[in-house]
This record gives sequence, C-alpha cells and structure tokens, in this order.
Amino acid sequence: MNFNTINEALLEQIKLIVGAAAVFTERDELHDYSHDETEDLHFYPQVLVKPQTPEQIAELIKLANQHQIPVTPRGAGTGLSGGALPVHGGLLIAMEKFNKILEIDERNLQATLEPGVITEVFMDAAAEKGLLYPVDPASKGSCFIGGNVSHGSGGPRVVKYGTIREYILNLQVVLPSGEIIWTGANTLKFASGYNLTQLMIGSEGTLGIITKIVVKLVPKPTQDLLLLASFFTDEDACAAVSAIFRAGVVPSAVEFMERKGVEWVMEHDAISFDLKPEVSSFLLIEVDGNNLDVLFADCEKINEVLEQYHCTDVLFADSSAQKEELWRLRRTMAVSVKSNSVYKEEDTVVPRAELPKLIKGIKDIGTKYGFQSICYGHAGDGNLHVNIIKADMSDEDWNTKLKPGIREIFELTVSLGGTISGEHGIGLVQKDYMQIRFSEIHLNLMRGIKQVFDPNGILNPGKIF
Amino acid sequence: MNFNTINEALLEQIKLIVGAAAVFTERDELHDYSHDETEDLHFYPQVLVKPQTPEQIAELIKLANQHQIPVTPRGAGTGLSGGALPVHGGLLIAMEKFNKILEIDERNLQATLEPGVITEVFMDAAAEKGLLYPVDPASKGSCFIGGNVSHGSGGPRVVKYGTIREYILNLQVVLPSGEIIWTGANTLKFASGYNLTQLMIGSEGTLGIITKIVVKLVPKPTQDLLLLASFFTDEDACAAVSAIFRAGVVPSAVEFMERKGVEWVMEHDAISFDLKPEVSSFLLIEVDGNNLDVLFADCEKINEVLEQYHCTDVLFADSSAQKEELWRLRRTMAVSVKSNSVYKEEDTVVPRAELPKLIKGIKDIGTKYGFQSICYGHAGDGNLHVNIIKADMSDEDWNTKLKPGIREIFELTVSLGGTISGEHGIGLVQKDYMQIRFSEIHLNLMRGIKQVFDPNGILNPGKIF
Repeated sequence: MNFNTINEALLEQIKLIVGAAAVFTERDELHDYSHDETEDLHFYPQVLVKPQTPEQIAELIKLANQHQIPVTPRGAGTGLSGGALPVHGGLLIAMEKFNKILEIDERNLQATLEPGVITEVFMDAAAEKGLLYPVDPASKGSCFIGGNVSHGSGGPRVVKYGTIREYILNLQVVLPSGEIIWTGANTLKFASGYNLTQLMIGSEGTLGIITKIVVKLVPKPTQDLLLLASFFTDEDACAAVSAIFRAGVVPSAVEFMERKGVEWVMEHDAISFDLKPEVSSFLLIEVDGNNLDVLFADCEKINEVLEQYHCTDVLFADSSAQKEELWRLRRTMAVSVKSNSVYKEEDTVVPRAELPKLIKGIKDIGTKYGFQSICYGHAGDGNLHVNIIKADMSDEDWNTKLKPGIREIFELTVSLGGTISGEHGIGLVQKDYMQIRFSEIHLNLMRGIKQVFDPNGILNPGKIF
Repeated sequence: MNFNTINEALLEQIKLIVGAAAVFTERDELHDYSHDETEDLHFYPQVLVKPQTPEQIAELIKLANQHQIPVTPRGAGTGLSGGALPVHGGLLIAMEKFNKILEIDERNLQATLEPGVITEVFMDAAAEKGLLYPVDPASKGSCFIGGNVSHGSGGPRVVKYGTIREYILNLQVVLPSGEIIWTGANTLKFASGYNLTQLMIGSEGTLGIITKIVVKLVPKPTQDLLLLASFFTDEDACAAVSAIFRAGVVPSAVEFMERKGVEWVMEHDAISFDLKPEVSSFLLIEVDGNNLDVLFADCEKINEVLEQYHCTDVLFADSSAQKEELWRLRRTMAVSVKSNSVYKEEDTVVPRAELPKLIKGIKDIGTKYGFQSICYGHAGDGNLHVNIIKADMSDEDWNTKLKPGIREIFELTVSLGGTISGEHGIGLVQKDYMQIRFSEIHLNLMRGIKQVFDPNGILNPGKIF
C-alpha cells in the first residue's frame, strides 16, 4: 500500500476541521501516542488530532481518502496487540474527547455512551443505578469502552455473563467513506439483514471509527463470594475448571494464576500473602447472585469438585477488603510480570477442558526452545494469557527462538480446537500467525470485507492481515 | 440477475454428485418444497436435491456457479419470511439428511450437530445430560437448528439466556465458491479477525450453506415457576414488562398475548381456560433457577410490579401439566391465528419500554387502514409479532391498504428505536421495507459483503436485498 504524507496544505485543512488546538505535530507531543501496552513497540504518527464530534471525524477521513493518507484510530492505548499503533505514520485520531456517558436508560436497561469513556467509569455509573455492565478487562481502570468493542475484549465475567458481543446493541460508526451510520437498532434482537454491529465488534478499527455505543445492562447482583484455591499442579487446577461447570455451577469468574505470577505480584505490589512452598497454581473463583444461601451452596459444590482435583487449600475471602486484595492479585499480574522482565504475551484460547493439555504443551515448548513462561487468565473461558519471559535468555536466543516457539504454541492451540486470540485481538503483532488458524480462502473473505468498507485501505492499515 | 435453467446434461451431473435417488423433479415431489410457513406463497424449484455430505453440496454449488444456476438452501420450511423459497427456480438443496447430533461434549459443555437436526430433538438430547440449549422458537418441535442459525431465530428464553448469537461458537460452511471452511473456533471467546461466525448468523442462507454447527450449552436449571397475569389494557401489560426488569428480576420468559389470540387458541386447540370478560391481554412469565425459595421470592417481586400495573389476576401454574397447558396456549397461537383467517405477520422489535407505544400505535394504524391485528410475542425482548387479520375486509381493501399500513407500522417501529425483524428475518417478504431502517449506504455495505462471498449471486437470490 502506497501512502502519502501530510503536507502543509493538508495540515491547514486538518486544523480547519478540528481547530488548531486539537492538532499536534511535535515529537514530544506525539510520544505518548506512539506506543500502546504491546511490549516495547513505537510508531510515531505524522499528525495527531483530537476531534470532538463524529462530523469532524467524517471530514478528516474524507480528506484522508482524497489524499491517500493512513488513518489510525486510538482509544486509551491499553491494547496488547498493537492495534492502535500508526505503523504507516499519517493521521492518528485520538478518541479521548469522546468521553461522555450520554444516557443510562433505566426503563430499557440500556445506555448510550461515547467510545472514549473509561470502562470502569461506566461500570460505576451503571452500578449506582443498580445495573451491571459485566465486561471488565483487567485494564478496566484505564481502557476505553470503544477499544473494548473494537478488540472484542473480554475479562473475567464473560464466563457467566457472555462476551461483549452480547452487550453491544448498536454502534454509530464513521465509515472510511466519511459517511456516518448506525449499524443496527437499540433492540435485544435483530434479524434484519447482515449484522454490521457484530461485524464491527472485534474489527480493530479497520472497518470504521466508532463514535457512539449502545449497550445492554442487566440488574446488578447484590451478593458475591470469592475463593482462592491452591493446587500442587497446573494440570489439576486447569482440569478442575471444566468439572465445576459440569457440576452445574456457573461461577461469575474462574481465573487461573501460576505461582510465579503471584510471586511477582507480591514483589511488585507489596501484596502480602501466605504462599505455601508446594503450591504450583491457583484458581480465583467468584460466584454472584441475589441470595447468599444459594451462593454458599454453590461454593460447597465447587469445594467438592476442588477436592477431587487435589486442591490443597481454599481461602474464602471474608471481607470486601480481602476480596479487593485477591482481585488485585489477579488484576495487577500483567503489569507485575511486565515490569519484571522483557516479555512477549500471547492470548491463547481453547475449549476449557483442553486447558490441561494446553498448559502442559506450553511448558514443553518452553523447555524445547529454552524460555520460561508465566500463564494466567480466564480459565473458565479456556482463555490463557501466556507471558513468555526473557529473564536470562541471551539476546540471540530471544531473537531467534521466540518466533518458532510462539508458532508452536499457536499450532498447539489450534490443534486443541482453539484460536490465536481470545480477547486481545490480532493487531500488528499476531498477524503473522493468522495462517495457522485460517486458510487463504478464509483470509480472502476477510480481505474482501475490508475492501468493501475501505476500498483505499486507509483505515488502520497494517493490522489483522 | 439472469439465471439459466437446468438442462438434461446438468441434471445428469447433479445425479452423479448426490445419486439419482436424491434428485427430484416431478411437480408432486416438489410441492412440499415450494412453500414455507410464510402466508400462502408458492415457488417451485426446478430440481430438488437431498445431499448427505458437505462435499456433495460443494460439488453442487460449484456446478451451479459454472452454469449460473440459482441455489436455495432449505431447512424444515418453518420460516416466516420466505427465506427458503426458490423464487428464481433452479436447485433447491434440502438439508433434511443432515440430521445427526455428532457429539454432546460434556467436558466442554459444547455440542456439534448437523443443521437438519430438529431444535427440540437437540434440546431434549442436551437435557438428558442435564444441559440446556435455551434457543427455543415456537416451532421448536419442527424447525431445524440450521434454519434457526440462518435466521438469527429467538424464542421466549432469549430474555434471560441471550440470543442464538451467544450459543453458536463455530460453523462449517460451504461457500458459494464451493470451498468448505470453519468460520471460527470451538471457543467461548474469539478475537481473531472479522467474526465470520457472527456474520453467517442471520444471513439467511445468502452467504454460504451451513453444514455443521458447534453450540455452547449451559447447566440446565432444575426448577422453574410459571404464572399468567391478566390485564385490562394492552398498555398496562406492556408497561409492566420493563418494570419487572427494573425491579431486579430477570425472568426466563415474559410473553405477551392479546385476548383475541387466546380466544382463537381456545377454539382451535380446545384448550379450556377461564377467560374473564374484562381482560384485554396477558403476560406469561417464567422464572428458572436451582433454588425454589429464590424463585418464589422473584415471583413475589414480580407480583408487586404487576399490581402497580393494575393486573387483575395472577394464575400460578401448580403442576407441570398446567405449565405445559399455559405454554401450549402461547406456542400454538401462531398456528391458531393462521388457521382462522387470511393474515400477514410482521415481526416488530423495539426497546422493551417502548412496547406500550408500539402496541397503541399498531392499533391506531389498524383503525386508520381498516384492519384488525392480533399481537403476541416476546415482550421481555420488546419483540412483538403483529398478525394482521383479513377477517371480513374486502379483497380490494386487503390488496391496497395492507402495504401502506405495514409500512406505517415499520416506520413507527423504527421511530421507537426498533427494527423491522427481531427473529423472523427479512427473506422475501420484508425486503421492500429495508429502506425504512437502513440507508442506501448501509444497504450497499450489505450488498458488498454478499458480492465478496457470492460474486455470481447464485446463492438464495432474491432475499434480503
């Protein structure tokens, strides 16, 4: 794809559209927008803009189309696949001014909000009205809901409440043509032609720029219980996961954590925790609902299952402070691991009963290629984040052995019925592995769809394909 | 679109592919395949085939592509929008031989089945293992799950369990090119490029022919309670619906029925039922779970809401026989209404709190154009099936006033934030109304996607667009 750079005349037009104060071109202004949370990648845009209305974005994108300028939309920059990186330079559209919750409709249990709202801010606003928006990625305190939609993000509560796909009813989108459409209707059901709302979800900003989001809410459960179960082996912990569901219990979270991840969180975050020497891994299990007796009964059932899988210890959180502490253990794991070593994170997902095979296979592959890994994630969904750690590997080994190792991990994932990303997306850093999951015919269908929406290929080029 | 007819040489090739015994050309053999449940429409295919393998379908579709022969896939023929009607003649592919449940995977709570499995047969098979597949359209006893996927079908339990989109994990599809792909992975999460599984759902057989389906299952609740609430006015009944959710209860079904619908069921099905003279409409409300105390508490909360909306009477089903009877009242309503008069059914859906405005508007429009209607449906989802009844309208009035009346109903639906089909699909009979909901830009995106999958336009032509 050949792109043009933004010349002075174009820059003036951009300033006319969004106002000069919303246009940035100095390197120090661009620095924070040159990376996301994906390892140590940096790509600088030529021009950064911070528009405030869909109409401004429409004008910008029309201009970019006329002059073959690459356009990259950016949320909070918390992505883990490089989806928001302006790899071809050009125009970076930061969505941070789109930060309003426009309506929480208590009659319909729906809300309309702009994509730059921080996920947790919205969750809290809904909770104040007794409503739950359950899609809470680990980065909920800083990520934008627009990025969540674009990446098909998940989080611990997918296992009970379903994916973000179930909560997004309608999207206002600026198309690459500069037209503005609503993709669907504000309804719980929609059987009216191809579902463009669903197509937009997880399309990583390559088909359009989301400017408004209508979400479904549900009544917020009033009670929850949280327990932390310890295991001698990773395989036992993983095997217990599918057995819990088979026992008839659907927890609101089932998170897996490897011992080393917990150790690193304890170092990094000064969380104190009685870590017994023989313990290899943990499951953090939450149940929620409106009736404590039912939840205690669920926990008893869970306990029975855990015992069958040689759980060594179950810690019940007995206060909201302790719940908070245990959740912090899980939520800060990514940051802790990342602050400890050069790393590369993969986002494997398999049918949940295949988790024991997946984790064993990952460790075997690590042994073969000489790398360590720390695994944690949403075990209830079969979604395991694999953090490959450089530690004391030589630079040469890291540079040569990582890629074939990752390829083997993904081949294993796919052979177990899984795929190469559960919730982080493909973006820039996973696209070389797409052929492991998808045939050329399949990829050509995706490319064809891209072509329909964005014939000039200006929107978030270099991602997914 | 110009299509060719199937000549003798082609017919021989078709017989070679599927075997002569699976090819039908006589008018009496074709008759049952010339219609579905959409009013009184009849379109005969030129040739009917009943293939048994995806590879046979792939060969058929390659042949059709070479010779520009229209191909229409057909499930059980229970559709309500004419989606399975071979409006351009050509080849009709009946999926009835694809009737095997291939696996119910109790470890992963997933199942793999062929598209010609009857929905209720599959639900029962899952239930035997203590598992729930909750997508149960009224026609569950006869419809195929493949048709449910193709139409994005719903049913009463969407309101608690989510739409069919939440339960379909992966699809094997024969593309119009004759290639066979799996659209996704057998995982609960998928953030690996454009989601073709979701794109296929609700695409009404225009993008590919589904040959295998992987579905998610959940533990089956052990308890349920059912109540029937009577109201003086339709508006009160509809208004109570959103208030129930606002009270923090998520029932597993909230069905609305108009009095006249109930009367016609009683005549048609000899269901006896104490129908008080002043009652205008009903809500059939189900709650489910694993703890009866919780369900009784939910029913108390529901009762409080119902009283606020001037509910005149609440009948609690006190036996499984009575539950069955009340469900039969609702499930046979479509058939009863249809056996009583010439009719036209529309499948409106709005945000649920707009139901009172919708139903009042529908009645006003009926008064304006001189037609009666019987409304019932999944009120918990804001999904109202509107049966416009010919009754004693003159043929001329029926032929001239129906279409503008329907148009006004859809305009009202869209003005309330809704869309023109919640679960029946667009098919043949709703496509003239697509412009009410969608701009030309939007429709062109859909047409572009169709073109990517099916450049020759041979697959289910004449539908959606």
